Amino acid sequence: MKTLLKTIALAVLTALPLPAMTAEPEKPAADKTHKVVFEVSIDGAEKWAGAMRNVENVQKALGVKTTKIEVVAHGKGVGMLLAKTSTENAELKANLQKLHADGVVFAACENTMKREKIDKKDLVELSTTVDSGVSEVIRKQEEGYAYIKSGG
Amino acid sequence: MKTLLKTIALAVLTALPLPAMTAEPEKPAADKTHKVVFEVSIDGAEKWAGAMRNVENVQKALGVKTTKIEVVAHGKGVGMLLAKTSTENAELKANLQKLHADGVVFAACENTMKREKIDKKDLVELSTTVDSGVSEVIRKQEEGYAYIKSGG
Amino acid sequence: MKTLLKTIALAVLTALPLPAMTAEPEKPAADKTHKVVFEVSIDGAEKWAGAMRNVENVQKALGVKTTKIEVVAHGKGVGMLLAKTSTENAELKANLQKLHADGVVFAACENTMKREKIDKKDLVELSTTVDSGVSEVIRKQEEGYAYIKSGG
Repeated sequence: MKTLLKTIALAVLTALPLPAMTAEPEKPAADKTHKVVFEVSIDGAEKWAGAMRNVENVQKALGVKTTKIEVVAHGKGVGMLLAKTSTENAELKANLQKLHADGVVFAACENTMKREKIDKKDLVELSTTVDSGVSEVIRKQEEGYAYIKSGG
Repeated sequence: MKTLLKTIALAVLTALPLPAMTAEPEKPAADKTHKVVFEVSIDGAEKWAGAMRNVENVQKALGVKTTKIEVVAHGKGVGMLLAKTSTENAELKANLQKLHADGVVFAACENTMKREKIDKKDLVELSTTVDSGVSEVIRKQEEGYAYIKSGG
Repeated sequence: MKTLLKTIALAVLTALPLPAMTAEPEKPAADKTHKVVFEVSIDGAEKWAGAMRNVENVQKALGVKTTKIEVVAHGKGVGMLLAKTSTENAELKANLQKLHADGVVFAACENTMKREKIDKKDLVELSTTVDSGVSEVIRKQEEGYAYIKSGG
């Protein structure tokens, strides 16, 4: 019995630091990996350029290596990830490629793609897809990602 | 004494799984209830239809029974919950009713209602109201809801 | 040994309320300090007035003294914090001053300022600046702030 209690006591002492950590989310360690999900449902070259600039600025301020970024495009935002758009817009294409090379994930919404009859081969190669763009944004928030809704 | 310690030990063992769960929000259990608050302050039938489509897609992807959804309308978004709008827009009306039947809460902002001289009886019956739409969105986030700002 | 176990048992009982609190974020204590970050990237007097009204309504609903608010302006939103804008728009100026007196922090994005050739002296005196507006919104969310994206 005493041995059992000793074991329990040790388990408790070992377990205590964890809840204490969750109780103070205000002080993240210096080396904490930032996680951010951008929701892009805006339309047009200028707005997409603004969204990409925001992603770049976040990398500069928070660190490329310490910041995990996923850009989820749905609705009109999927236009940003069309191969056709990159063909017509060399600057956007270069931005997407640079950010992708830096580890940014670009994901297009399959619900939008079905509705707009967009095939996977219509997207830029660097893009992945997700079943539901909005649901992906929700799942990422549940995983502790900060949320940024792109657009004015 | 031993009985007391035994009781404490049991209480501790029972209590431990809870903090362990909060310490690892990155791995939600398969049966986790998702919670989402949508903020709708956009205007017009097309945008409201888009917002309702997003809610439906979230239910499909995350599960109707496992996802708690509240749609908070304020500013121009309150127009979506006017009885007049449902009378004029049968498709929106049907969407609201279907989602409401599935447990989605629709709440109109009383601050907007006062400003726009909208009475409770001017709203569709399925709608509830909240003192302040933006504050409701904040409170829901504090309760662990993921946040989705509707609109482009 | 028994004394040690007694001490551990007491420590455990004392420690338990904390994890229990984190496990039930749905019931914040009445005196809880709310924290909210508003992201303002919208353009124009009417939209800025709407954003300021939202901030005021949050103060009314959640309490001026119990709610910490930071308004981060970037992109077109920085226009709201220009001294020139306050000179031209007495109502906005009064709103900014009242909210600032109540402790609301207004922060303009230095990335936007560089791009638009806006100097610190071009901003209203009550405004502070941050290296990157979007990154500030992310950092605040990491510190437990609820997020509100202003605009329709």
